[in-house]
Amino acid sequence: MKYETYFRDSITAVDEILQEVLPPEGQRPSILHEAMRYAVFTGGKRFRPVLVLAAAEACGGTVQDALYPAAAIELVHAYSLVHDDLPALDNDETRRGKPTCHKQFGEAIAILAGDGLLTLAFQTLTKVRSARKVQQLLMELSTAAGSCGMIGGQVADLTLAQADLDLPMLDYISVHKTGKLIKASTVFGAISADAGEETKQKLLKFGELLGMAFQSVDDMIDGDGYLKLMKSREVSQKVRDLIAKAKREIKSLGDKAGKLQTIADFLIRRIPRGSHVKVDRQN
Amino acid sequence: MKYETYFRDSITAVDEILQEVLPPEGQRPSILHEAMRYAVFTGGKRFRPVLVLAAAEACGGTVQDALYPAAAIELVHAYSLVHDDLPALDNDETRRGKPTCHKQFGEAIAILAGDGLLTLAFQTLTKVRSARKVQQLLMELSTAAGSCGMIGGQVADLTLAQADLDLPMLDYISVHKTGKLIKASTVFGAISADAGEETKQKLLKFGELLGMAFQSVDDMIDGDGYLKLMKSREVSQKVRDLIAKAKREIKSLGDKAGKLQTIADFLIRRIPRGSHVKVDRQN
Repeated sequence: MKYETYFRDSITAVDEILQEVLPPEGQRPSILHEAMRYAVFTGGKRFRPVLVLAAAEACGGTVQDALYPAAAIELVHAYSLVHDDLPALDNDETRRGKPTCHKQFGEAIAILAGDGLLTLAFQTLTKVRSARKVQQLLMELSTAAGSCGMIGGQVADLTLAQADLDLPMLDYISVHKTGKLIKASTVFGAISADAGEETKQKLLKFGELLGMAFQSVDDMIDGDGYLKLMKSREVSQKVRDLIAKAKREIKSLGDKAGKLQTIADFLIRRIPRGSHVKVDRQN
Repeated sequence: MKYETYFRDSITAVDEILQEVLPPEGQRPSILHEAMRYAVFTGGKRFRPVLVLAAAEACGGTVQDALYPAAAIELVHAYSLVHDDLPALDNDETRRGKPTCHKQFGEAIAILAGDGLLTLAFQTLTKVRSARKVQQLLMELSTAAGSCGMIGGQVADLTLAQADLDLPMLDYISVHKTGKLIKASTVFGAISADAGEETKQKLLKFGELLGMAFQSVDDMIDGDGYLKLMKSREVSQKVRDLIAKAKREIKSLGDKAGKLQTIADFLIRRIPRGSHVKVDRQN
């Protein structure tokens, strides 16, 4: 079964929340809200919010309790793509087969739409009823997305000089640019489900390993990153080892963690056959 | 007495908190944290955080309880300046007599430093001990700074066509681009001080009027905005009326609101004599 089919219910539920929290296109200034919606609703596998929901279930919580946190994570992801695509950064003209936000709306609106999405992510956390949870989620998300987290990884990637290219540096970039938000996703699930400290630590560890595997697979798809220093089959083996370790971390949670295990398996299936082959990145 | 002298203690206290919450320059990636600190510590009157502290005192609270919220507001203000100055937006090369962030560090780092400051603003709210207050502050700040608040005002200003230039449109820009964050500052003071609903409403109204007056004075200094449609003495009279009304709103709070009254008076003193004269904008 395809990922999109398997997780259709989760994706639909997340999209409904995103529709709810994003101001309607007609809302003033309409060009800004059109751009924000364009950035969120133009494709995307919803990997991170699906992970939040699966993590909540793995901790015995409900999907319902994790929906706003899941939407918040996706909004941070969407903002980061809009800003990463800008001419001053990666200068990408297309994403998911469509013009990037700045190509469609101009640079100024794209910058401000990104700012709007990041701010909306934090606003979305206030929809969670328990003030204690809001505080925990806020701490987790602002740390993961901040200058010592995701943004730090992006800067390290952007400013990477050939001379500094070694495995520890690639690990730093991978862990920060991609890993922090994926780890925050599994922790978000644990917080939403009111998981105990021991379970939360398992989810955290699972998210950390999954995040590293995710970035390595992305590198194989893009023929970039780790592929600069490692053979394709070495990276592939590394991903399999990370995923196996990740799955062991949550084994004790039993059937409740079934969807998390499936997400991990889907990641293995994303490894390009024959590798090196550069294919269109979907997320 | 000069503003900077009168509020020296408040400014020092806010700067200490900003020093505490901003990662040190040496922290990896160092270029990012250098840029974030550059944006925060290159001048600025700390108008908004001083307002938060004065508002807290006006509600019978302590400066101590309002320091992190005050720093959060200043971080949002600093991020907005970094992004507004970018080539795709206002394309400003200097601010407060120094190169703008992107002139000093390049566009990519400036965009990401702005993102880092905005994220740090929200992270700073988690330093407040009471989870209930964190939730209230988060709701207030994310709404004020979001796409229906400050960012919305910035987009309206950027995309303003000559044909749409009328007083309601200038009011929209003024209220959103500048007013929302100034209003959030006085409400932040009220929340920090655990003010009752009635007092909070007074602070909110005071902040709203002060914000409108602040933008009008800025327009007079820049020879822009309202000056396009109104005579200089008309704008000057409007500011005086707004300030008088704002001061009446908090009169019943008595001596505790002394600093708030002083801030309002200082705004009157910022009105340029003879007007129209374009002088270097300090904030």
